[in-house]
Parts: sequence; C-alpha cells; structure tokens
Amino acid sequence: MLARMEQRVSLITLGVADVAAARDFYAAFGWHGHEVEETVFFQAGGLGVVLWGREKLAADGRLEDEGGNGFGGIALAHNVRSREEVDAIVAAAKKAGAAITKEAEETFYGGYAAYFTDLDGHVWEVAHNPGFTIADDGSLRLPF
Amino acid sequence: MLARMEQRVSLITLGVADVAAARDFYAAFGWHGHEVEETVFFQAGGLGVVLWGREKLAADGRLEDEGGNGFGGIALAHNVRSREEVDAIVAAAKKAGAAITKEAEETFYGGYAAYFTDLDGHVWEVAHNPGFTIADDGSLRLPF
Repeated sequence: MLARMEQRVSLITLGVADVAAARDFYAAFGWHGHEVEETVFFQAGGLGVVLWGREKLAADGRLEDEGGNGFGGIALAHNVRSREEVDAIVAAAKKAGAAITKEAEETFYGGYAAYFTDLDGHVWEVAHNPGFTIADDGSLRLPF
Repeated sequence: MLARMEQRVSLITLGVADVAAARDFYAAFGWHGHEVEETVFFQAGGLGVVLWGREKLAADGRLEDEGGNGFGGIALAHNVRSREEVDAIVAAAKKAGAAITKEAEETFYGGYAAYFTDLDGHVWEVAHNPGFTIADDGSLRLPF
C-alpha cells in the first residue's frame, strides 16, 4: 500500500450550467476540446480541464450543492511570459463575454495581473510573474 | 498581439481559512510545500498548487465572497494507476481529517473512484480510469 499521494493534479473539472455555452466560451480563447456525452475534455499541458454539468458533478461526488455562480474559494491562473500577453488575453476574455473583476495592474510581487470569471463564475487570473519560470512546453516551475 | 490563450493551467489557488492547518492537511499526504508570507506553494507536476487565505484571494481578485465551506462548482482529480492506490489514498485522506463524500466504487466508465473534501471544502476525486494514460512523470494524457 502506498502511503502518499503524488504531488500532482490530473484533472480540473469545472461544473457549468450549459456545456455548449461553456465550450464556446473557451473556444473563443482558441481552446479545442473533445466532447463525449455532454462533457468536454481539454488537454491542458499535463492535465485535463473538463467542462461538465454542475449538477452531474455534484451528484457524482455526492456533494451538497447550494448552487450559485459566485466565488467558490478557488482560482485558476494562466501565467504568461509578458505583460503584453496579459493585455491580449484580457481583451480576448472581454470579447468572449467574461466578467473582468480586476483589470490588469501591477502586483505586490513585481508582476502584472488581471482576473476574470467565466460564464459560470469560475475564476481565472492572468498573470505575468517574472519570478516564475514558464518552460517551452508551458509548464510552470516555482523558484523554490 | 496574441489572439489566444495557450491550452494550459499554471496555478491552482485554494482559498483556505487557516493556512497552517491546510498545509498540515496536505503534508499528511506527503506533499512538501514552500511557505512564503503565509502562502504555501507546492510544485505539482507542471503547475503550482497554492494555499492562500480565502479572504486574501477574494480581495486580490476583487471577487465578492459570500463565504461558505461547501461545493464551489469545481473539482480537482488525482488519477492513479491502480484501484489499490485509490484505496490507499482514501485511507490517507481519512487519517488526515478529510470528509469522504463518496467511498470508492465502480464508475460508469469502467473505473474506480472516490471523492473527498479537504478542510475548506475543496473537492478532490481520486480515480483509476483505465482510459487515461498516466506518464512516468505523472502527467495525464487524454485518449482523444
């Protein structure tokens, strides 16, 4: 028996109200997914991002869901290599119908970041953090 | 100007009520993080998992937070290579103080999976899905 859990994440599943609408939202950023039985799978670097009906996700995990479209206590970040890229993605997010909760600004750590929420309130930060290395394959390496 | 967002995730930030308690919870799975200014960073494969005060995260993103410790509409999954590994991680989760919302059982896709929530209600699925390839480095490859 293994006593530990490897330090990695395999999938991030976003519960959504309307899978087709959510798929179109992410398609506006250039994301190409694969749809199987009302579920959309995106290969996102070394893990999968999945769009699935929120009710189905809650039922699958036997999770009580009070519903809502607000902050769920978790944020995803997409780090990029330049400030210009932050601005470009924020512009794309606006076109896609995202709510920009924080326009891009300087951060306390010497970076530059914005936040937006998708159609279902899932939170994305778009950030340029000069302290974090982004490899050629897009993976992020912490400096510690 | 770039018109698209690369298909990848850089960071997953979990808003928590007590950073030290959350750090200890993940340490019980063998996760080693690096703490900087009341923030814990874990290198998790090609991305970072971050523990940060939920109030600070909400304030950083200018997000309205109604609080709560329930399902936020998102689930993380940790996929493993065998059913035995699912059972071992669920056992470790119980010891760590997780709430097991679904004990491990057969899934509709021919796999075997359980769900638990961490101290702050963040949802983890632990799954063996024979249709998804896990590489030697732990990255997950979708079959599509």
